[in-house]
Amino acid sequence: MIETRLTRAFGLDHPIVSAPMARVAGGRLAAAVSNGGGLGFIGGGYCDAGWIETEMAEAGNAPVGMGFITWKLDRSPDLLDRVLERKPRAVFLSFGDPVPYGAAVKGAGVALFCQVQTVSDARRALEAGADVIVAQGTEAGGHGARRATMTLVPEVADLLAREAPEVLLLAAGGIADGRGLAAALMLGADGVLCGTRFWASPEALVTEGQMRAVLGADGDQTVRGNVIDYARGIFDWPERFDLRTMRSGFVDAWTGRLEALQAGDAARADFARAADEGRAEVAPAVVGEGIGLIRSAPGAADILREMSAEAEALLGGGWRR
Amino acid sequence: MIETRLTRAFGLDHPIVSAPMARVAGGRLAAAVSNGGGLGFIGGGYCDAGWIETEMAEAGNAPVGMGFITWKLDRSPDLLDRVLERKPRAVFLSFGDPVPYGAAVKGAGVALFCQVQTVSDARRALEAGADVIVAQGTEAGGHGARRATMTLVPEVADLLAREAPEVLLLAAGGIADGRGLAAALMLGADGVLCGTRFWASPEALVTEGQMRAVLGADGDQTVRGNVIDYARGIFDWPERFDLRTMRSGFVDAWTGRLEALQAGDAARADFARAADEGRAEVAPAVVGEGIGLIRSAPGAADILREMSAEAEALLGGGWRR
Repeated sequence: MIETRLTRAFGLDHPIVSAPMARVAGGRLAAAVSNGGGLGFIGGGYCDAGWIETEMAEAGNAPVGMGFITWKLDRSPDLLDRVLERKPRAVFLSFGDPVPYGAAVKGAGVALFCQVQTVSDARRALEAGADVIVAQGTEAGGHGARRATMTLVPEVADLLAREAPEVLLLAAGGIADGRGLAAALMLGADGVLCGTRFWASPEALVTEGQMRAVLGADGDQTVRGNVIDYARGIFDWPERFDLRTMRSGFVDAWTGRLEALQAGDAARADFARAADEGRAEVAPAVVGEGIGLIRSAPGAADILREMSAEAEALLGGGWRR
Repeated sequence: MIETRLTRAFGLDHPIVSAPMARVAGGRLAAAVSNGGGLGFIGGGYCDAGWIETEMAEAGNAPVGMGFITWKLDRSPDLLDRVLERKPRAVFLSFGDPVPYGAAVKGAGVALFCQVQTVSDARRALEAGADVIVAQGTEAGGHGARRATMTLVPEVADLLAREAPEVLLLAAGGIADGRGLAAALMLGADGVLCGTRFWASPEALVTEGQMRAVLGADGDQTVRGNVIDYARGIFDWPERFDLRTMRSGFVDAWTGRLEALQAGDAARADFARAADEGRAEVAPAVVGEGIGLIRSAPGAADILREMSAEAEALLGGGWRR
């Protein structure tokens, strides 16, 4: 067992949190992670109220959190109140200004996680009253920005040591096994947030075709860009964020041609069908560079146990060769 | 003292290697690192034979290595033979195909370091006969590519475990203190390569103006791109590589306008003057994201001691809070 400030604060067996991956992390995954001794989040990112309701029900009585894409929440802020009424274990805000929501979350007695991509974001998260700051590097899958985990985590740790030593810190981006967990603890984190590692589990809402396409991939095969946002018909992501996915023929064909894709209704309809059918050569898996460290898709509880055991062995001196 | 396969193989006190930063890592820095118990490299990147000769002389009898930019070496390969005659401690190749040079380096009884930016590069480095592979993440200063240290290092470690377990592995990119060193060892590295950390030392060939400009910076203030290559009149870097530097007014003004900069003799002449004079608002420091972890410029021997001591404390359990 690895004990950290995170495991003590949230009563966990493992200092591991699953990312609120929009449309991928439903109630089943979040509950499996929380029931397995980690902390699971539902990915309520795009703020579809019906989907969120269904997935919270799916999680049952497991103590799970709810994640939002902050700039989307700005357009339907009442959704936060409805989620807070259900007393989630925590609320996770990323990609936007958390300050307008901090008081409501804390007032409801719910823990506030703020994901940040820069040191400047981290300062803003402190203003919002974050209990936990998640420092996300560019190697992460899905939306993110440009700084890397290896430098962002210790730099935010230094900020917290100076200004808010009671605030916890998680490392996110590129952490897919016990080596990454142990490294994150060395960098000053109290735990880790994993997306891609839980994406490749049977509890995630992932098509078979996409799963098959990634389990043999190496980490050279991901790319950051905006093609997938445009393909999904989402044209208004703030410019500083783009998303990392596997490459695909579709991604390559439309890179540098976003305006044409925005106008290309037929191409976008084809993409939507491919996504439903799991045709990964068109609609690629939304995973990060860590996919190159992942060769199978065990259950979430096994992932937690294996990561922790590997990290514990390394921390006990197993790094020596 | 941290003992690893690297310290044993090269007889070092610290598992720390200084990067062959072109035009910045001269004989004085390389010798200070090697004499301080690490392994120092001269940055012979742009293959100016006279400069290389001078800096090798400056290093005296210290056991230092020589670094080359491989695609530049392709244009004056005889330079490698002249360096090998001087019996450097090692030769370091990056940014190009190392295979044409492997036999000559190894035939001279000199250790071969190959820096790689992808898993695919690492496979090629094995074909070249590398003794040490340096896995460089995108957070590094100077030239590099897109993958991040946190995932590239363990993925290359897995490759080596399968195919060449006798080859050593260094982590590079974003490592600027003992936390980064300890994290790298957890990820499976035998040691680290540091550029930015030694850039900010009195032994580096750095102007006062640039040094002053970075010691208060945070890591959000660096950017990757090609402006500085073009500003220096180097138009033929292979497309997959660009370089990370501090931002500057000049960088911002010319981003997205490379052709104009190539044609802009006056702008480039102004840049050259600014670089000589250390005017960082025009010619920015070539450093990586790790600059946000650096607040002073101690001597190279002190850097080695402090990094090692901090890492040793963490590895002994000091990460617990």
